Amino acid sequence: MSNEFSFMQQGFPVFSGENALSLLEELLNAPNDFSKMLVLCDDNTYEHCLPILKRHLPSSIPFDFFKMKSGESSKSLSVCESIWQKMTAMMMSRNDLLINLGGGVVCDVGGFVAATYLRGISFLNIPTSVMGMVDAGLGGKNGIDLNHHKNRIGSFAFPIATVCDPVFLKTLPDAEWKNGCAEVFKHALIGDARLFETLSVDGCTRANFTSLLHSIQGVKLKVVEDDPFEDGFRKVLNFGHTVGHAIESASLKKDSLPLSHGEAVAMGMIIENEIMFNIGGLDASIKNNCREVLEKHLTEVKITSYTDVELLEWIQYDKKNANGIIRMSLITSIGSCSWNVEVPQEIIRTTLQNFR
Amino acid sequence: MSNEFSFMQQGFPVFSGENALSLLEELLNAPNDFSKMLVLCDDNTYEHCLPILKRHLPSSIPFDFFKMKSGESSKSLSVCESIWQKMTAMMMSRNDLLINLGGGVVCDVGGFVAATYLRGISFLNIPTSVMGMVDAGLGGKNGIDLNHHKNRIGSFAFPIATVCDPVFLKTLPDAEWKNGCAEVFKHALIGDARLFETLSVDGCTRANFTSLLHSIQGVKLKVVEDDPFEDGFRKVLNFGHTVGHAIESASLKKDSLPLSHGEAVAMGMIIENEIMFNIGGLDASIKNNCREVLEKHLTEVKITSYTDVELLEWIQYDKKNANGIIRMSLITSIGSCSWNVEVPQEIIRTTLQNFR
Repeated sequence: MSNEFSFMQQGFPVFSGENALSLLEELLNAPNDFSKMLVLCDDNTYEHCLPILKRHLPSSIPFDFFKMKSGESSKSLSVCESIWQKMTAMMMSRNDLLINLGGGVVCDVGGFVAATYLRGISFLNIPTSVMGMVDAGLGGKNGIDLNHHKNRIGSFAFPIATVCDPVFLKTLPDAEWKNGCAEVFKHALIGDARLFETLSVDGCTRANFTSLLHSIQGVKLKVVEDDPFEDGFRKVLNFGHTVGHAIESASLKKDSLPLSHGEAVAMGMIIENEIMFNIGGLDASIKNNCREVLEKHLTEVKITSYTDVELLEWIQYDKKNANGIIRMSLITSIGSCSWNVEVPQEIIRTTLQNFR
Repeated sequence: MSNEFSFMQQGFPVFSGENALSLLEELLNAPNDFSKMLVLCDDNTYEHCLPILKRHLPSSIPFDFFKMKSGESSKSLSVCESIWQKMTAMMMSRNDLLINLGGGVVCDVGGFVAATYLRGISFLNIPTSVMGMVDAGLGGKNGIDLNHHKNRIGSFAFPIATVCDPVFLKTLPDAEWKNGCAEVFKHALIGDARLFETLSVDGCTRANFTSLLHSIQGVKLKVVEDDPFEDGFRKVLNFGHTVGHAIESASLKKDSLPLSHGEAVAMGMIIENEIMFNIGGLDASIKNNCREVLEKHLTEVKITSYTDVELLEWIQYDKKNANGIIRMSLITSIGSCSWNVEVPQEIIRTTLQNFR
């Protein structure tokens, strides 16, 4: 894979492919104002990815690291506070650099921390997971959770570069791999019918991921380019997430071993297609085909431990809603998606009951 | 005073004058998407200002309020967390409105909370103090403190309107009045020599404030218009604040009755003028005249309880610094200010010793 696999977002480069770390090295060796760097990692990326990254960091700029626990529980205010304190202790100034080395959680937390430290300093995203490379590391959204409310607090801020090198995926655990695959299928469903065909047959695997990365990222980056601050169209990226986040929040609150984001979103896509079918916006054959593919490659819907009442309550908290009306992003065919679709509560309730 | 006293910032109106609340009423009665509003106030504005504001809020949009403790200690993460929780409990969506009713602290905290809740919702600033009307309520900066580090965490976000009605100043305590006056003198010193002349004679008093408000706000709004995100020129607004924030931080940490922001900034301006004189950038006569005026109308320099070492340490944390070099915004004459002036540590140390 070569450098042709590069995009821009808001004027900043996205380097994707086997050459990505060399391009990062070039970028950091060019004249710049950075006097120090902090690398944000989690238990896993500290062990598996930091040693690789270190070989590409310029020796002229001193760096330190901050290690947080892996997992969604780190998307908290108290973790942010610890990182801000570390940055303050290092006397980091507005001219210094935060490097986010990790999956979705590290990119989400690090983006927020950088965007708000001294009212905003530069940061780099180096996603090391499928989720990070196809979703959280791209698009300039960051966020942390508030009492199980996903991404309740956050902002928009774009990294000065995003570096997606498949070398980091070699040590990614299978569960994490699968977690990110839900977003891969989502991107295909909302914007790339041909990609969905390929995924339907082969799934999203270690064997084919690098060759598909360009197409997968292309869907998201095109959407973000057209509507960077989610005034409208960008909401299509939320397909599967209204119901998905509700399931995830319910699970985070109730289950001792909570569902992954990917599992929740996979279930969310299946259920939201059923909703769109029930309001007459999606053909039965497409809906059934999608369900079969998603169940085969991702997961089946298992929501019996959450009541309709609690799922509906979480759905009502969704960020896309306004004035008490529930709005979803729902596909109308493979590769095309509507947003701000009003969905009556009654339809959601009936649909949920079909999955019990 | 009439509506001619209105400015714009980043496309949003600033209503200043005795008519300001009526203009707010007009704005909120025009067609809009707000389904609910939260009014953020502190103990004082809850008692003295909310009853007045209520008369101008449209009955068609339900509102609730959040009351925080008055004072700098509310510029904390835990207060933000409580407000975000309140907003979540109210199911506030991206289409709803936060109203900041208070002085500098309320505007600083509320701006940050609104800018980061659901990645940013609309907010209004209704400053009720001199400090709020001439500084914190204008300019789109928000911020909270981290371990006595002033405004360490924050962002840039502009309110959909800023409403400065002198009616709220009637109940402002004298200490709070004086606190805001330091910023009034600062605006004059960096950008309006004629205003400084008036202030030199009369001070900034309840009798003349309303008639001067237009000139005072004009200095800041002009600077913000030219450089909204502080890429350069906007740093002139920090005159007095490098040393001032250091004194304030030291006092917050050590004194049982800490200095006010205004007192610290007044001392900061006097000391920074001495620094500029010592590096040959300011005439002795101007420096001495300024000191006399500031001591007469604001405060004398009292820094004997803080050591040079601790003040220098706080100065090094200043946001304007980079690469370990101390940079200040310093006036070169009355009404004009330089920024990014490099100041050797030795000069700061010698200057501080002159004030002991």
